[in-house]
Amino acid sequence: EAAATDASVARGEDPGLLAGVPWSAKDLYGVPGFRTHAGCPRPLPERFEKAGPLVTRLVAQGACCLGKTHTVQFAFGGLGTNPHWPAPVNPWDAGVERVPGGSSSGAGVSVATGMVRIALGTDTSGSVRIPAAWCGCVGLKTTAGRWSTAGIVPLSPTLDTAGVLARDVADVAFAFAALDPAAGDPLAFRRRILETDTVRFRIGVPGAFFDDDLAPGVGDAVETALRELERAGAISREMRALPEAEPASELFRCGGPVSAEMEEFLEHELPGFRDTLDPKVAERIRAGAGISAVEYLGRRRAMHDLERRAVGRFDGLDAMATITVPNTPPPVEAVADDAAYVRENLLALRNTSVVSYLGLCAITLPVGLDAAGMPVGLQFVGTPFSEARLLALAAATERVLGTGRARLGPPPRIASSPSP
Amino acid sequence: EAAATDASVARGEDPGLLAGVPWSAKDLYGVPGFRTHAGCPRPLPERFEKAGPLVTRLVAQGACCLGKTHTVQFAFGGLGTNPHWPAPVNPWDAGVERVPGGSSSGAGVSVATGMVRIALGTDTSGSVRIPAAWCGCVGLKTTAGRWSTAGIVPLSPTLDTAGVLARDVADVAFAFAALDPAAGDPLAFRRRILETDTVRFRIGVPGAFFDDDLAPGVGDAVETALRELERAGAISREMRALPEAEPASELFRCGGPVSAEMEEFLEHELPGFRDTLDPKVAERIRAGAGISAVEYLGRRRAMHDLERRAVGRFDGLDAMATITVPNTPPPVEAVADDAAYVRENLLALRNTSVVSYLGLCAITLPVGLDAAGMPVGLQFVGTPFSEARLLALAAATERVLGTGRARLGPPPRIASSPSP
Repeated sequence: EAAATDASVARGEDPGLLAGVPWSAKDLYGVPGFRTHAGCPRPLPERFEKAGPLVTRLVAQGACCLGKTHTVQFAFGGLGTNPHWPAPVNPWDAGVERVPGGSSSGAGVSVATGMVRIALGTDTSGSVRIPAAWCGCVGLKTTAGRWSTAGIVPLSPTLDTAGVLARDVADVAFAFAALDPAAGDPLAFRRRILETDTVRFRIGVPGAFFDDDLAPGVGDAVETALRELERAGAISREMRALPEAEPASELFRCGGPVSAEMEEFLEHELPGFRDTLDPKVAERIRAGAGISAVEYLGRRRAMHDLERRAVGRFDGLDAMATITVPNTPPPVEAVADDAAYVRENLLALRNTSVVSYLGLCAITLPVGLDAAGMPVGLQFVGTPFSEARLLALAAATERVLGTGRARLGPPPRIASSPSP
Repeated sequence: EAAATDASVARGEDPGLLAGVPWSAKDLYGVPGFRTHAGCPRPLPERFEKAGPLVTRLVAQGACCLGKTHTVQFAFGGLGTNPHWPAPVNPWDAGVERVPGGSSSGAGVSVATGMVRIALGTDTSGSVRIPAAWCGCVGLKTTAGRWSTAGIVPLSPTLDTAGVLARDVADVAFAFAALDPAAGDPLAFRRRILETDTVRFRIGVPGAFFDDDLAPGVGDAVETALRELERAGAISREMRALPEAEPASELFRCGGPVSAEMEEFLEHELPGFRDTLDPKVAERIRAGAGISAVEYLGRRRAMHDLERRAVGRFDGLDAMATITVPNTPPPVEAVADDAAYVRENLLALRNTSVVSYLGLCAITLPVGLDAAGMPVGLQFVGTPFSEARLLALAAATERVLGTGRARLGPPPRIASSPSP
């Protein structure tokens, strides 16, 4: 692809706005020339290799796919583990092998290690935001329905969204505009996002629920960042209750619509893959797969009702701010144990899943390190289809705090690795 | 409303394109100033009286609502019967009291008797087309998703569509454009629809399945009409198999997604109305309400797969042509019996429900009378969102055959009723 781009430039042609930009695709995306595994031990049938609209847009604009990235099997987990394909190690701990976060685990690592400029991930309950937060990247979770999920192995047609991970807001904004049919020219879009200097964003802080059970240093990192933003005049802050968080979280914890949708997909599309399921994934599917149609529809109705009420809480705000992930990425070995896995997984997904179940969109960006030296994400949450405003807010945040690279430095495992 | 229009005209104001046009709303539509019963013995809670976008558009353009029209309870039946509200009599038989077709039973009768120029109905499996065919009207069933169903009591969020009944294609085209945000100026739209004189429409005839079990004279009426259209050069005709019809019909007969969706709606929105259910409606809900979420999702997947394949069968065609309703409207007394009801109801819905389950749109227009002297409908079926082409085809058909009024004359019950 790079050679073709060089040749195209040599011929005086326009090689496309993303010419030569290296990108990675979470291995749920169909990408011509690559097998699709979705985290399974053997490739899925060929029909899952067909590109959907997002991949088609990237390729058409000249971006070079460096490869498929690691995923939790069928994207059903927030830590980044997979018995068939060992988790890529989180580059932020040079000593202990910690999980990178999931399910877009390889997406986060491919950006954090500088292998790619854009990583395509998917986010059903947090699968872009968790690896972005734990790997020190910026991660955008789009509103469900904004981008087509055609050409992506589904987990939940109701909640699945495609998303972007990159090292800073400028790259995410550029990729967003290159992917989004409504964003117009990517260069102009990025310029507009980066130049909203004079605005003071009005931020609601829901606090309770999102601030429970924090690992040491996580709360401090976010509070420090928000204070710096206030002091610089970039944001004003007010308490704003979001009582829909708790019932949304209950829906998430009982499997919401996801388990039944995944079960139906496996039954009709990949019956032969059931025996390859990671027991941790199989357990999560089984827990919710047996519900009745009336129960399933009732859960979707409840989500819809909660969304309507939650959107009302944003009145007068540009966004709400929460901690992206409450815990610190656990060591890979520590979550081999089932009970530890369940506990850490549910906690990792807590603050992001609520956003998904309420039909909102969100962006996470790195604002500091926790007591274990691992990156901490600040999550800005917006009303449906407010991605452009979230990007502008994230850009304003970076102007005050510095980009992740400037504020956090390079990941220790990269910094200390011997040069080739 | 009429007085307000007169006053508006007297003041030299523009009273709206539909000023003074009498219309009726099937009693599932919220219309300010009217109670909503949805065929129940007592009114539904007030929130169901709120107008959705379609009613709002009609009212904003000056149309005068003459009243709410009779419906099968919760629209779940094709004959037009309802134990709480006796069926309005089909005006096409001056002697025997026959059903008008349903579930938009009153909509059909309000047009056939000349009470209104536009009737809003709903069509989940045939509920606009059956009363339109049996009452000698034109009826348009829109593509699911084309028009918002907000402000309409739901039967099946998956399959519900709003539709229009009127006495001729010109009125349906005008109403369509007045209701459809994409159609532009209604006058220009109607002119364009009525003026596609020179086109020869390519029509596929699926024959088998749709032509089984016809009442005497039904097949002849449609065959005669199609021959006249061919002879006049308005259409060319070819056989075109639609093997998706039979599996779509099987899905319909087992309740598809409808029973579970209706059950869930009753449980969450109107639990107090369950004891008012027409036993015939209750039986149809009960039959499919107990399915699992996986079964429900599997049915929707099957519908989606069938739709994709069915749409491919339309290659090179403008539309397919079928008989709208195979049977003749039975006497009201004859379908008091449960077995007769089930038989006649399933047969009435057969040709229309398949169109709904395949995600298509359709228009029916009156082309003759059957051996019992009752109107016979010709159904043109189009690919999703091809309503404008169907309207042009129906207009061309009327130019050759004459409007229903010209070809069939007035309904005998109206013609013979004593003048006031």
